[in-house]
Amino acid sequence: MADYKAPLREMNFLLHEVFAAEKLWAELPGLAGAVDRETADAILEEMAKLAANTLDPINRSGDEEGCHWNDGAVTTPQGFKEAYATFCEGGWGGLLGNPEYGGMGMPKMLGAQVEEMINASNISFALYPVLTNGACLAIDAHASEALKQKYLPKMYEGTWAGAMDLTEPHAGTDLGIIRTKAEPRGDGSCSITGSKIFITGGDQDLSDNVIHLVLAKLPDAPKGPRGISLFLVPKYSVNEDGSIGEHNHVSCGSIEHKMGIKASATCAMNFDGAQGWLVGEENKGLAAMFTMMNYERLGVGIQGLGASDRSYQNAIEYARDRIQSRSPEGVKQPQKAADPIIVHPDVRRMLLTQKALVSGGRALSTYVAKWLDTSKFGEGDEKKKAEGMVALLTPVVKAFVTDMGLDCTILGQQVFGGHGYIREWGQEQLVRDVRITQIYEGTNGIQALDLVGRKTVANGGTLFELFAADVQSFIDSQVDREGMVEFLQPLAAELQRLRESTEKMVAASQEDPNAPGAASVEYLHLFGYVSYAFMWAKIVAAALPKVDADSFYLGQVKTARFYFARLLPRTQALAGSVNAGSATLMDLEQELF
Amino acid sequence: MADYKAPLREMNFLLHEVFAAEKLWAELPGLAGAVDRETADAILEEMAKLAANTLDPINRSGDEEGCHWNDGAVTTPQGFKEAYATFCEGGWGGLLGNPEYGGMGMPKMLGAQVEEMINASNISFALYPVLTNGACLAIDAHASEALKQKYLPKMYEGTWAGAMDLTEPHAGTDLGIIRTKAEPRGDGSCSITGSKIFITGGDQDLSDNVIHLVLAKLPDAPKGPRGISLFLVPKYSVNEDGSIGEHNHVSCGSIEHKMGIKASATCAMNFDGAQGWLVGEENKGLAAMFTMMNYERLGVGIQGLGASDRSYQNAIEYARDRIQSRSPEGVKQPQKAADPIIVHPDVRRMLLTQKALVSGGRALSTYVAKWLDTSKFGEGDEKKKAEGMVALLTPVVKAFVTDMGLDCTILGQQVFGGHGYIREWGQEQLVRDVRITQIYEGTNGIQALDLVGRKTVANGGTLFELFAADVQSFIDSQVDREGMVEFLQPLAAELQRLRESTEKMVAASQEDPNAPGAASVEYLHLFGYVSYAFMWAKIVAAALPKVDADSFYLGQVKTARFYFARLLPRTQALAGSVNAGSATLMDLEQELF
Repeated sequence: MADYKAPLREMNFLLHEVFAAEKLWAELPGLAGAVDRETADAILEEMAKLAANTLDPINRSGDEEGCHWNDGAVTTPQGFKEAYATFCEGGWGGLLGNPEYGGMGMPKMLGAQVEEMINASNISFALYPVLTNGACLAIDAHASEALKQKYLPKMYEGTWAGAMDLTEPHAGTDLGIIRTKAEPRGDGSCSITGSKIFITGGDQDLSDNVIHLVLAKLPDAPKGPRGISLFLVPKYSVNEDGSIGEHNHVSCGSIEHKMGIKASATCAMNFDGAQGWLVGEENKGLAAMFTMMNYERLGVGIQGLGASDRSYQNAIEYARDRIQSRSPEGVKQPQKAADPIIVHPDVRRMLLTQKALVSGGRALSTYVAKWLDTSKFGEGDEKKKAEGMVALLTPVVKAFVTDMGLDCTILGQQVFGGHGYIREWGQEQLVRDVRITQIYEGTNGIQALDLVGRKTVANGGTLFELFAADVQSFIDSQVDREGMVEFLQPLAAELQRLRESTEKMVAASQEDPNAPGAASVEYLHLFGYVSYAFMWAKIVAAALPKVDADSFYLGQVKTARFYFARLLPRTQALAGSVNAGSATLMDLEQELF
Repeated sequence: MADYKAPLREMNFLLHEVFAAEKLWAELPGLAGAVDRETADAILEEMAKLAANTLDPINRSGDEEGCHWNDGAVTTPQGFKEAYATFCEGGWGGLLGNPEYGGMGMPKMLGAQVEEMINASNISFALYPVLTNGACLAIDAHASEALKQKYLPKMYEGTWAGAMDLTEPHAGTDLGIIRTKAEPRGDGSCSITGSKIFITGGDQDLSDNVIHLVLAKLPDAPKGPRGISLFLVPKYSVNEDGSIGEHNHVSCGSIEHKMGIKASATCAMNFDGAQGWLVGEENKGLAAMFTMMNYERLGVGIQGLGASDRSYQNAIEYARDRIQSRSPEGVKQPQKAADPIIVHPDVRRMLLTQKALVSGGRALSTYVAKWLDTSKFGEGDEKKKAEGMVALLTPVVKAFVTDMGLDCTILGQQVFGGHGYIREWGQEQLVRDVRITQIYEGTNGIQALDLVGRKTVANGGTLFELFAADVQSFIDSQVDREGMVEFLQPLAAELQRLRESTEKMVAASQEDPNAPGAASVEYLHLFGYVSYAFMWAKIVAAALPKVDADSFYLGQVKTARFYFARLLPRTQALAGSVNAGSATLMDLEQELF
């Protein structure tokens, strides 16, 4: 297995040559002066070291050992405690946090690259700070000033970690039917009672406290999703002076045995009259959750990206080293018994597919992060447009990058042949780890329903037109440049294909309530492939002037050609399925399955 | 997790209504009278019970426990020894065996259904008898009469098991570079010395002896694949009276820790001057292997099919039971908090995709088994044609059915949402187990190279024309039947698309040595989807006259419509990639990956 090497060159290329990050950072009103290129470079280099030297070495061992549960307490695998301490000492927990409470206030465009490195080297580890970040976002956006002051600084430090307690055994996608109850105590707090499952980092031995954000129902709350409130429930009570008090009535009943992310504790949590405080307004808990959802879902996409890049790095090394059979062009290494397998066209197909999907996904997540930053730090029309782009693209980046993540890690495993199936090589772990990213934080089917329903059909496609206008204005800006036409022509055609599918789907949905669900997953994939084509065209536009100076840029252009020739044709099949309607899905009687 | 229920109704439908098995069995000269429908029915029903009652119950526990290795000896998980004994008592080991040595001489068409049930209930268990069958085939086809008499009866009984020892650490796909040596002892036997890896069932505690078929090089053998011979090397020597003698110099050095099939022992084997006997001619070991390869590779396809069906059965049960959210059409079960998830179009998409691929794969493997039987038991032109069909279709059925097997088990896992990721539900094990079928017995990339290279380009597409003629003659025979046109028209169009891609690929290969490898995997998938369309059209042809009498037949027709509308469009994308040529694959310099 190759050592992890962070793709700093490509990250910097994307940030500064493709997306002009420094200019954006200087211009965004809410970010003025917080970060420049020098700071950004230093941050990326530091994380590259931490990922390679601290997180990567405990990834395989963490998978082998897994988490332990004993009498209500969770123990993480060997080395995790020390790595978490190192992580917190570096101040990484507060990278994107609110500076008023001790955060560093960095933009998500930079945070996205940092997250990729953490995930590429160790997804299980990454989940502990990721869930803390999510909890911090919700607290920062919705909690009272008192709660913020009491909890955020310690959580940014990592001294206390966070957990999100949403799912119940009978209520996963359908949170409207949860049963956990909140009874007001009359002192401004509530007693929380109920059981939650699938709680990532619900308990662990890394931090001094775990701050749970719990969905529960107040007495006489309306039925369904509009009757759910959000509560902050610490594992240990916190005294007025900020010190840890007694154990709250929060306990971990067991941990799950899972396919992967075995070093991440997935807990069943019991709340037995635990003391909690309302976050945000009564009965608006789901809305409070949604404000952080866009960050979380982009983050899950980046998990898929990280695993893909790790698998790709291993596969290249193996394909260069492993010798087996001769090149179809004739013997390449006569001094050896066979040629390295990278000479074979089909091995190159697998590697180039990984490369094209990894870099495409990295560009798309950087692009979405850019809109997130603009929606957070920008003003006026730009801010409003950015909010629309974020709403539209979040389900795409969550679902498409993780679906491609499974494909990429499967390809990276396949390059290894039989060795890919053996645990010690590490490739099969990446498949098992990445698989969860297609399921949690809203399954990819739910993401697709969000994209076609709330984000497209509900507004008649106006958000889609925002995106289409961005693609079109890029095409218009490049149309006279030499060397661009081979990419602009198919990009324009694919945009048109996507527009036609969008219009058909919106029209069909007026008459057929099953139309959005029938088209959803294939529509999201169609959208994903067109987005990657847009990203690759932007990459080429930035790389073309420099191809003679540095072979790195030539590599970008050649990979773009591969993407357009070999992967983009998949849109034809997807459009066919999108346009097929719901009849063949709905016709089969339940008992005939 | 649902209990396994063998799909006997559909197996019987395929055998007798779609493929007229009984007529074929009566007509094939080499099979005359060996089997009739009554016997076949009884055999299928018996295996259905064994699979449900004996093999299925130890599948999850076998995965959890795995195999143990201790001081050279392998122990299988709890219950495997008893299940193996029951399996052998039922006479299942000799089902397809040569009657001259105690086999039952049944046709592969029947054997394919039996194998599916064994694999669907327990792939890890299935591998022990599967490898024994493979070894028996090679011995029966190539060994001396003395070896056959000595070994085959005990192997058909299962008292002794078989193992195939091909791979070495540095030699997987490229067997031409193996290093294991065979030194003649002067008494008709040889001393075998070398190390083999990835040996399925190389050691176990189920049978009294393990009969290894080992590839090795005789002194002064030519270099490469034409210098390899095949040897029979028993773990324990066998005395003249057939009793077990002393331990041969064969030892198991370790077992692998794998992603899945954990109850199947994957062994590293050491041969230290072990006594072995030549099977077949000197230096023709690879050719001897190839005679059994078609059976083995169809068998691997059936493993993928079995896992798919198991995952599908679980997913249907879950989708009917799990309630979550409301149908887009409005409330379906007002007395409950939510509707069962099978009402949602996207869940139906997943289930129908599984169903269409499972039944399509079952039909294709039965179809290929039919040609295998005709090539074995037939005569004259029919036999010759059958050999061609088997040669062409074997890589398709191995690779396409297992690639669809991964897709199906992933879908079946996705239907379960978060629970699909948890081990106790069993869906994730099926993903891990089926993954190996894309890798072993020649990776699916190697299957694709075999299809485009030896089976198509090398003969200018004449084998392809055999297949095309079979499809065309079916279309011609059905063209006037009411209700068939909706399937025949797209089938004819897809056949034409496949023919054009075939011709382009053959033409391109004259000028570009990289053309076959550049097109191979997508070409195989294109071939696979067209084959399934052919199968579905045949199914419809058999079902249409009975749709009013029995809803089973209506279900077949509706599933065919789904396949044509939603899955078959994938051929458009695949043809696009096949026709894209090798340039974008070969252009990127190795250091730029």
